[in-house]
Amino acid sequence: MINVEKLQQVLRDFVNDRDWEQFHSPRNLISALNVEAGELLELFQWESKNHIVDVNDPETRQKIEDEIADVFIYLLRIADKLDVQLEDVALAKIKKNAEKYPVEKSKGKAVKYTDFSDS
Amino acid sequence: MINVEKLQQVLRDFVNDRDWEQFHSPRNLISALNVEAGELLELFQWESKNHIVDVNDPETRQKIEDEIADVFIYLLRIADKLDVQLEDVALAKIKKNAEKYPVEKSKGKAVKYTDFSDS
Amino acid sequence: MINVEKLQQVLRDFVNDRDWEQFHSPRNLISALNVEAGELLELFQWESKNHIVDVNDPETRQKIEDEIADVFIYLLRIADKLDVQLEDVALAKIKKNAEKYPVEKSKGKAVKYTDFSDS
Amino acid sequence: MINVEKLQQVLRDFVNDRDWEQFHSPRNLISALNVEAGELLELFQWESKNHIVDVNDPETRQKIEDEIADVFIYLLRIADKLDVQLEDVALAKIKKNAEKYPVEKSKGKAVKYTDFSDS
Repeated sequence: MINVEKLQQVLRDFVNDRDWEQFHSPRNLISALNVEAGELLELFQWESKNHIVDVNDPETRQKIEDEIADVFIYLLRIADKLDVQLEDVALAKIKKNAEKYPVEKSKGKAVKYTDFSDS
Repeated sequence: MINVEKLQQVLRDFVNDRDWEQFHSPRNLISALNVEAGELLELFQWESKNHIVDVNDPETRQKIEDEIADVFIYLLRIADKLDVQLEDVALAKIKKNAEKYPVEKSKGKAVKYTDFSDS
Repeated sequence: MINVEKLQQVLRDFVNDRDWEQFHSPRNLISALNVEAGELLELFQWESKNHIVDVNDPETRQKIEDEIADVFIYLLRIADKLDVQLEDVALAKIKKNAEKYPVEKSKGKAVKYTDFSDS
Repeated sequence: MINVEKLQQVLRDFVNDRDWEQFHSPRNLISALNVEAGELLELFQWESKNHIVDVNDPETRQKIEDEIADVFIYLLRIADKLDVQLEDVALAKIKKNAEKYPVEKSKGKAVKYTDFSDS
């Protein structure tokens, strides 16, 4: 169980204490989300047959956790600013995807079917 | 309160029913997270002085919620695969940021200081 | 005029000298392209009504040029690996967009129409 | 050889004919660049040991060329708006990288060293 409301309040206080609300438009927070997602990807960008990222290496693990945290923090801020309930929209999307990707048609198929998204 | 464990179990079942686990390496899920973050950004990419996205327009709102849901869903999958506790790493990162961006030095400053991240 | 072939040869030599070809699959180079595009976006992510990035500030300008260079370098590598002619595909896409966004229907419209892309 | 100046003029005309200049701030074009880079990544996001993208499949090839074209088109627009010479900044960055990643220290090393970028 995650206390999202408490986390969002902590972030609201963090932002207000620094007078950063003026910079936290939905569009800016979504830009920052993309930047952080890119930093998480950077840790895996050169993964190859002979070079697998060791996610258990303590230094690598810390970097991964920090970038995942940044993505989550911005996602919480975006949901807060836009008054979106993360659990509700996730469940609604999963339901939509279950209809879009019926088990029998999707089984083991990566192309076009291995996707949670609408794109 | 979000029941993350339950959401992650629902997603695990969704993936296993479709035999998609073979495609859901951490690196692939992080790639998908970036793709979905980009689709969320796309909804705001042309925002300008004379063109502000109406986040209350029902059609736009639905698109925003769907993309936020996709980002959250992949983040939940990534955390599940890497055994990362989202709330714990978020609180640890906020603490780190509070030390990195002391109120007195950061107040109202966007450049270099308006950032939750390490980069 | 840009001598793309010469630039791509310089990059090929750079990669071969370091035995990095093993890491430069199309997918990895496309991941790196996304990471660099994110770093370019980071320089503008907090832009707001009261905070416009000064692209003429020498330090900011150098960062912008370095990130644009990184994006271009990876794009050249991707085109080289996939044997894609950048000028040809750009002209073909512009032609396609001209049909997709006829002047009379697109004039001054941002939503749906202010886009070079298919998405 | 690519006639960048001509391509940029074609794009300038395309944008002016549609009165889109108002939407093409550097920040917006950089956002669009990120969105298109994500769409290119999407084509490869599920690549796995047992699922390699067939870049020679005509339909896949067309999608790849279209997305590469979109990235290049926005990069040309960004360089035009910011008056950045793509070839000059690329050569300057390659020189910088050659000093940052000396052959003897970088040979065959992916982590930290397999990167053209400063990050």
